[in-house]
Amino acid sequence: MKVEAFAVDGPGAELRSYSYEPEPLGSEEVDVRVTHCGVCHTDVMMIDDEAGISTYPLVAGHEAVGVVEAVGDAVDTSQIAVGDRVGVGAIAGSCMRCEFCLVGQTQFCALKDDTVLRGNRGGFARSVRSSQWRHVYPIPESLSSAEAAPLLCAGTTVFKPMITHVRPTDRVAVVGIGGLGHLAVQFLAKWGCEVTAISTSRSKEQDARELGAADFVASGEPGALEAAAGRFDFVLSTVAVDLPWDAYFATLRPGGTLCLVGVPPAPIEVSPMSLIPLAKTLVGAIPGGTTDTRRMLEFAAQHGIRAKVQTYAVDDANEALNSVRAGSPRYRAVLEM
Amino acid sequence: MKVEAFAVDGPGAELRSYSYEPEPLGSEEVDVRVTHCGVCHTDVMMIDDEAGISTYPLVAGHEAVGVVEAVGDAVDTSQIAVGDRVGVGAIAGSCMRCEFCLVGQTQFCALKDDTVLRGNRGGFARSVRSSQWRHVYPIPESLSSAEAAPLLCAGTTVFKPMITHVRPTDRVAVVGIGGLGHLAVQFLAKWGCEVTAISTSRSKEQDARELGAADFVASGEPGALEAAAGRFDFVLSTVAVDLPWDAYFATLRPGGTLCLVGVPPAPIEVSPMSLIPLAKTLVGAIPGGTTDTRRMLEFAAQHGIRAKVQTYAVDDANEALNSVRAGSPRYRAVLEM
Repeated sequence: MKVEAFAVDGPGAELRSYSYEPEPLGSEEVDVRVTHCGVCHTDVMMIDDEAGISTYPLVAGHEAVGVVEAVGDAVDTSQIAVGDRVGVGAIAGSCMRCEFCLVGQTQFCALKDDTVLRGNRGGFARSVRSSQWRHVYPIPESLSSAEAAPLLCAGTTVFKPMITHVRPTDRVAVVGIGGLGHLAVQFLAKWGCEVTAISTSRSKEQDARELGAADFVASGEPGALEAAAGRFDFVLSTVAVDLPWDAYFATLRPGGTLCLVGVPPAPIEVSPMSLIPLAKTLVGAIPGGTTDTRRMLEFAAQHGIRAKVQTYAVDDANEALNSVRAGSPRYRAVLEM
Repeated sequence: MKVEAFAVDGPGAELRSYSYEPEPLGSEEVDVRVTHCGVCHTDVMMIDDEAGISTYPLVAGHEAVGVVEAVGDAVDTSQIAVGDRVGVGAIAGSCMRCEFCLVGQTQFCALKDDTVLRGNRGGFARSVRSSQWRHVYPIPESLSSAEAAPLLCAGTTVFKPMITHVRPTDRVAVVGIGGLGHLAVQFLAKWGCEVTAISTSRSKEQDARELGAADFVASGEPGALEAAAGRFDFVLSTVAVDLPWDAYFATLRPGGTLCLVGVPPAPIEVSPMSLIPLAKTLVGAIPGGTTDTRRMLEFAAQHGIRAKVQTYAVDDANEALNSVRAGSPRYRAVLEM
């Protein structure tokens, strides 16, 4: 049976109806009937081929939530069974036998299988396939499907560096209150941290405080960043812009860490004296692997962490896409398929 | 009684005889009669006022080993007593009451007291004073004074990031086989790591292997660095030069760390894609505090780690200084006072 989907035919194109014939279901594979799919900034990047690796027609969507409709014969059905409500994120599978997969660090698997790229079709569709059932995540009952969808990419993106780098006693800052940042503030507040939200203007201050921020810095106000000197153990930059890096390092306490999940366009330039005398760290982060993504979903359910979403009917998919292109959702767009 | 010392009168000047009248001994202070003092690259920087904070006449020297000759009335003489063989490093004291001092992280104390700067006189002298006895380190019996002296700065500089970042199962590389690097290779090999030495040419290959390196990369040979792609969990750069940073990040495994103890002259420029997709880290490091410096000395004694030194009679102090200026000691110059 063909899969009905939405595809684009080239960079910048509109979504259009498209269908494709799936391969026979492999033994480790899972088909998920999609009910909701988040629209991530990375979807726009893939649609517009910013990395130069997209192929067309391209079916984007890597924050899919839905119901399992078929499983291969090697799937552990005590964990993932037909009828389960599950999510599929940016990674559809990995080898499950390399040194990284064997310790749950599937994000480092050299053979990991993107949900969307390399000819795979994503979640802007009636169904999406995972090539490895361990990359299919049960959705805790207390999370609605629309609110859970963005957790599959945005949630695990901000949660993974917390697991690796952050202790509850840390004073932390989140730069950028958007799709990633509004989740990071919630996760970090529930992680036990004193959270400061940093945004250019005060337009998102009230939202940030409601999400759990104890303080707010409007970085566009003269002297605001300088006044935050030496305050934070951990600063998470969720923005895809070139920041004044040395000024941000100055906001760190001794031994502090600046972590990037947003990808700035230009090379990062940092003075050695921003790093060496007080032993500061610059680190990049990517979405967590299978183990940490499960933990993230459980932590979100346990603490009532939810993506703030604007839902779009499937017929309004292009409107949703353009909204993400413009950076305007507060704070995450989700398609109801 | 006046202290006989060697001072310089300005940037680039020669050492000359100089004497000064010490202040009365404070209650937490310790006077050490210097028998040996290492000549560190930082001494040259202070003598030449590269940071713009030197005052003259300047008595350099912050790798002093000698014998305690006087202690203040609040010193714990069960730990530091007259007649003990001890060392004094770059930090002569700290407040011992801030949040950092209270956990042995004295290197982050905002009130830490440099041995040489801010009017203090260092170890190119008959005696040197520590303002806080906890910053005076007993020298383990098995270490000779000449071999121990460079450990007080160079040793703790390379050892501290190992404590923080390195596990014995890590594959590591040391960039630069000099005063810092020749110690780093030894410490890391005894730490349990597989160590690769990286140096521009093969001139130091035999030395590096004798010090414990299992492999050697001559980074000046075409393609040598590229051939090391994805090999290391931890790369320690001990050189004060601008490296091709993205090429060094490419030598790291997923989740790997590039740590700087050498201070490059220019800002570090790194592509976001060198950091983010494989969650890599750039971190600076400085010499350890009181607790870690003690551990370093004990670890060196336990494993027979020794600085390779060229000793100079006190009358040849200028020759030693010029040798360090030229970067020619193999691998560390030490004055016999």
